[in-house]
Amino acid sequence: MIKVGIVGGTGYTGVELLRLLAAHAEVEVAVITSRAEQGVRVDELYPSLRGHYDLAFSNPEVGELAQCDVVFFATPHGVAQGMMQELLAFDTRVIDLSADFRIKDIALWEQWYGQPHGCPELVAEAVYGLPEVNRAEIREARLVACAGCYPTSVQLGLLPLLEKGLVDPSRLIANAASGVSGAGRSAKIDNLFAETADSFKAYAATGHRHLPEIKQGLAAAAGGEVGLTFVPHLLPMIRGIHATLYSELLVDGVDLQAVFEERYRNEPFVDVLPAGSHPQTRSVKGSNICRLAVHQPQGGNTAVVLSVIDNLCKGASGQAVQCLNIMFGFDEREGLNSIAVAP
Amino acid sequence: MIKVGIVGGTGYTGVELLRLLAAHAEVEVAVITSRAEQGVRVDELYPSLRGHYDLAFSNPEVGELAQCDVVFFATPHGVAQGMMQELLAFDTRVIDLSADFRIKDIALWEQWYGQPHGCPELVAEAVYGLPEVNRAEIREARLVACAGCYPTSVQLGLLPLLEKGLVDPSRLIANAASGVSGAGRSAKIDNLFAETADSFKAYAATGHRHLPEIKQGLAAAAGGEVGLTFVPHLLPMIRGIHATLYSELLVDGVDLQAVFEERYRNEPFVDVLPAGSHPQTRSVKGSNICRLAVHQPQGGNTAVVLSVIDNLCKGASGQAVQCLNIMFGFDEREGLNSIAVAP
Amino acid sequence: MIKVGIVGGTGYTGVELLRLLAAHAEVEVAVITSRAEQGVRVDELYPSLRGHYDLAFSNPEVGELAQCDVVFFATPHGVAQGMMQELLAFDTRVIDLSADFRIKDIALWEQWYGQPHGCPELVAEAVYGLPEVNRAEIREARLVACAGCYPTSVQLGLLPLLEKGLVDPSRLIANAASGVSGAGRSAKIDNLFAETADSFKAYAATGHRHLPEIKQGLAAAAGGEVGLTFVPHLLPMIRGIHATLYSELLVDGVDLQAVFEERYRNEPFVDVLPAGSHPQTRSVKGSNICRLAVHQPQGGNTAVVLSVIDNLCKGASGQAVQCLNIMFGFDEREGLNSIAVAP
Amino acid sequence: MIKVGIVGGTGYTGVELLRLLAAHAEVEVAVITSRAEQGVRVDELYPSLRGHYDLAFSNPEVGELAQCDVVFFATPHGVAQGMMQELLAFDTRVIDLSADFRIKDIALWEQWYGQPHGCPELVAEAVYGLPEVNRAEIREARLVACAGCYPTSVQLGLLPLLEKGLVDPSRLIANAASGVSGAGRSAKIDNLFAETADSFKAYAATGHRHLPEIKQGLAAAAGGEVGLTFVPHLLPMIRGIHATLYSELLVDGVDLQAVFEERYRNEPFVDVLPAGSHPQTRSVKGSNICRLAVHQPQGGNTAVVLSVIDNLCKGASGQAVQCLNIMFGFDEREGLNSIAVAP
Repeated sequence: MIKVGIVGGTGYTGVELLRLLAAHAEVEVAVITSRAEQGVRVDELYPSLRGHYDLAFSNPEVGELAQCDVVFFATPHGVAQGMMQELLAFDTRVIDLSADFRIKDIALWEQWYGQPHGCPELVAEAVYGLPEVNRAEIREARLVACAGCYPTSVQLGLLPLLEKGLVDPSRLIANAASGVSGAGRSAKIDNLFAETADSFKAYAATGHRHLPEIKQGLAAAAGGEVGLTFVPHLLPMIRGIHATLYSELLVDGVDLQAVFEERYRNEPFVDVLPAGSHPQTRSVKGSNICRLAVHQPQGGNTAVVLSVIDNLCKGASGQAVQCLNIMFGFDEREGLNSIAVAP
Repeated sequence: MIKVGIVGGTGYTGVELLRLLAAHAEVEVAVITSRAEQGVRVDELYPSLRGHYDLAFSNPEVGELAQCDVVFFATPHGVAQGMMQELLAFDTRVIDLSADFRIKDIALWEQWYGQPHGCPELVAEAVYGLPEVNRAEIREARLVACAGCYPTSVQLGLLPLLEKGLVDPSRLIANAASGVSGAGRSAKIDNLFAETADSFKAYAATGHRHLPEIKQGLAAAAGGEVGLTFVPHLLPMIRGIHATLYSELLVDGVDLQAVFEERYRNEPFVDVLPAGSHPQTRSVKGSNICRLAVHQPQGGNTAVVLSVIDNLCKGASGQAVQCLNIMFGFDEREGLNSIAVAP
Repeated sequence: MIKVGIVGGTGYTGVELLRLLAAHAEVEVAVITSRAEQGVRVDELYPSLRGHYDLAFSNPEVGELAQCDVVFFATPHGVAQGMMQELLAFDTRVIDLSADFRIKDIALWEQWYGQPHGCPELVAEAVYGLPEVNRAEIREARLVACAGCYPTSVQLGLLPLLEKGLVDPSRLIANAASGVSGAGRSAKIDNLFAETADSFKAYAATGHRHLPEIKQGLAAAAGGEVGLTFVPHLLPMIRGIHATLYSELLVDGVDLQAVFEERYRNEPFVDVLPAGSHPQTRSVKGSNICRLAVHQPQGGNTAVVLSVIDNLCKGASGQAVQCLNIMFGFDEREGLNSIAVAP
Repeated sequence: MIKVGIVGGTGYTGVELLRLLAAHAEVEVAVITSRAEQGVRVDELYPSLRGHYDLAFSNPEVGELAQCDVVFFATPHGVAQGMMQELLAFDTRVIDLSADFRIKDIALWEQWYGQPHGCPELVAEAVYGLPEVNRAEIREARLVACAGCYPTSVQLGLLPLLEKGLVDPSRLIANAASGVSGAGRSAKIDNLFAETADSFKAYAATGHRHLPEIKQGLAAAAGGEVGLTFVPHLLPMIRGIHATLYSELLVDGVDLQAVFEERYRNEPFVDVLPAGSHPQTRSVKGSNICRLAVHQPQGGNTAVVLSVIDNLCKGASGQAVQCLNIMFGFDEREGLNSIAVAP
């Protein structure tokens, strides 16, 4: 049993980590921090956890966290940067669910996040936590910067096409939509039920923070710069991301279904659906699976990829546990076997 | 006061017609038909209408309908075709909300709808009921074929760009999403609450019946063939369509905001939002407005247009009432003044 | 045309007032105040109102408000108390949608609202704004304290039984449920979409602020003290209140249906459904109607009344407009004719 | 490993059985039947199960089912009755999720279900499958008739009070509400998304089929007839039942919290929340837990019990698996450890 710490445990990715780790045979959650809820039991804040944890939120103390084998940061961006040097000075490994160490170009990070980077010296070392791309590097990493939710859904959908040079990398379109839990558990009028239910909208059409992260990943796959238009939308539902990805095929007669099946044959958490399918987000609710389908409408030169994940699971906490499994040599599926709750 | 008949009044477009026409000062609903609900009062089926109608569903009889000044068909495709010749032989004018007379290419219609056209001889005469394009023709029409829901949202969003030749007509992408009411009031497992709530999916990614209708309208605007990829999605909400439209700009430095404002300056039911806006479907729920916003992400060469309508109102029954107002010389806003119910 | 002012216009009852008053032929909204949104156009905050108002929020100034014929307070409790004396010193009449002047027993108000009453000298004069009970008094009132949302739904459901002494007044149960908009437009984690959607709970089971208000109204109808258990619940929907009311019949063989129909025969906004009905909240969404049904399960001695209203309309802003119509001698239905948007 | 068969596997209780049994270490699902979907793979109908089952639906054949150690009936009422004699003639044990064998009074069953009972001779032997009441009998049973969804939520909430004679058994009120999945996976207009979303209603206020089942269970606890008014409601959400239970206390000064905690101290699937709590249905979504809270509003003589379950889990399939665990001597929690997915 390894000891696990969680910084920032009151948010949705925090409670999702707790849900997943309760089913994990190899870990014990030793510390969970929250300044605001210090002293409150986790099962008081989240009654769904009653009977599974005998734990209360504590103030974050590096000394205490450093006694863990691994620490998850389930914090807003900017927090992990401030504690990272001090924490890595111990033997503790870190899995950061925030955006702090995902983008390699520090100036680009600072431009999109509107603040100076608090720990630029560790950015190069940090391993981007998308196992389907970086499994070997994750295994050895001290610091994993987990892929974001939109970036996971978009990259997994486009990688097979870009890696093989099948589509024009300069004309990519990612039309994505997320459930409201993606906005986190913070008190904002925009995310009230009465503001979001029974309605739908795009947001950040002129530029969303996940754009540079997605482009960085796609560029690596394409072997060069990519042109991407990314428009996120807000869905009147709790969990789930659906990405609809458009690209222009450069070659005729490719069996796209085979390309996708081949690419993900050995991936435990990517499921290529049968030809002609349309994945629903509910088919992955509460599970770590990404389900994909690829279409070529009317046999034309546009490839349409449909990609669904649970934003809190494969898009955040599930991916983090998957990374943990890789880092510590556990079965990659440990703690991640649960089936989506449907209906 | 003119006399109005409604064929197929038990569906969602039927009840929406009743809701709108109750507020219309110039019409009286004289007949509403339904084979299945013959004899049932409309306010028994739709308690929201109690106090507004003293009317029961009757069997459709051409003789009775012909005594109306205008007859709406709120029926599945194929029904209007069968009664049209007989009905137009009288002085009655017809507003067809179904797809029966929208597509000018009869073979194309038969291919997408999978059945022989029942009244090909009237297709040429039928006027496509999109007032923002065909107002003058609608005024004189005997038979108006109202634009469909997705087609309305997509065409209103792309027309300003295509009419001025600002974008590449061969590379259009329409990513659209509709509330479940768009699937109609019929007993299908796929549209149950437990199948659709808290979930999201694309459907008909390889080809949806609205594709040829949209392409026909866009081609007219572009003055030639268009290439369009259209992927519809099903939203976990009741009413509303949101279209996210991607196109490639052919020229630099165009003020897209001005183009849109200019195009729709005098349109009573198209609202171009201020630059930088993201329309929400709830802002048009129950109203006949189409709200549009245009973006040019990162100043690049992709134009992104966001377009929202209420699928049952501007996407169906509201548009039909707007056409009626034009046909009979009423104020175009008559009966259509209600404000969206928000929140 | 009379001039109307609205204090606290950014909340849900404020925007609902604007929606309703836009359709009112006899009023002009001259002032709408908000400290937080001063200078912001109302249609910027509520795009659904675009084209209907050319108005911006201003700071509340008694001098300006006093130039209105009537001022609505759409504010949290405590606000109207502070401005009332000053405002009534002018000729302006006031319709208060908050709880400030509803409860006649000032000590009771202070106990439930946890603060000293800011204007006790006007409590006696204030007329409780439930037209079905106090129409005559409302007509003459300077200050109307509109009935609350739960209190309206519960009182309209129980009055016919209590006024005729048909049920035991000491054993009343009101099991009620409200959409999330009832919690207002304020940034609270508890009302986030991800906290309330796809879930249901009771709240305030040990005592809710509307309890004393309901008991006061029921006692007046019963001619003496009543015993009431009131448990509110939070529904995963935007608008609507449903009350399920249980009482014990004291006499046999009464035709409850006739009792209800008789009681509300001349009420424009209370609709007694046919025997055996179950009103749905969607049948009143956006409308000022209260729909009622009465049942006597298995012919036993329990009367079950089902009562639905739109909490923002008949439960708040619609009721306020109804009161305004009575106060100024307008048709009581003016501005309140719109039909529920269903589906 | 025991062999399990499921009759009627295409409905929501069927897929929920599959979800739960996939995590069960001691069973293998050998047969799953459906006349309508014969030959279709279960993971084609339910993509959430992909990777967990290599199984297709087959026609129900007693011979094949009889090779199972236990057969679940996840069928509409009336089906299990027809196959039971034949099946029990083999060594197979049966867990029936339908209402066929729940009610001991056969005439009463026939009255509420409107058809002759198809197997009255086995009714007496059938054990009512509510482990918190009948654990010992379930252990030995050949045929378990699982408690229904509403009945489970209501009985678990009232048993502690009735067993100790603390409340008046003649004046019980159960106000309950269920998510739409409770209506099953059948094509009915009433259960469409556009009919049920964003709305709320009572139904069957004059009498619901679960009434006699609940009364039978409560009478056993009370040691005599009970008077119960039961009004079910339909919630705009997928899963979950919430019961609000009202009863009149006969004695003063009882510590109700202690009564409940004592009653359920050793129950693995009943969780008595701390005093003052309000359970939310989302805290049990996908889990087999019933969470309870008891209130005594204003210290009066009314006890209010709040009870939540997942209608498909503790209200159906989870309860069935719990019964299976008891019948076969497995750990009662086997396969039922998953934590509710929240948010």
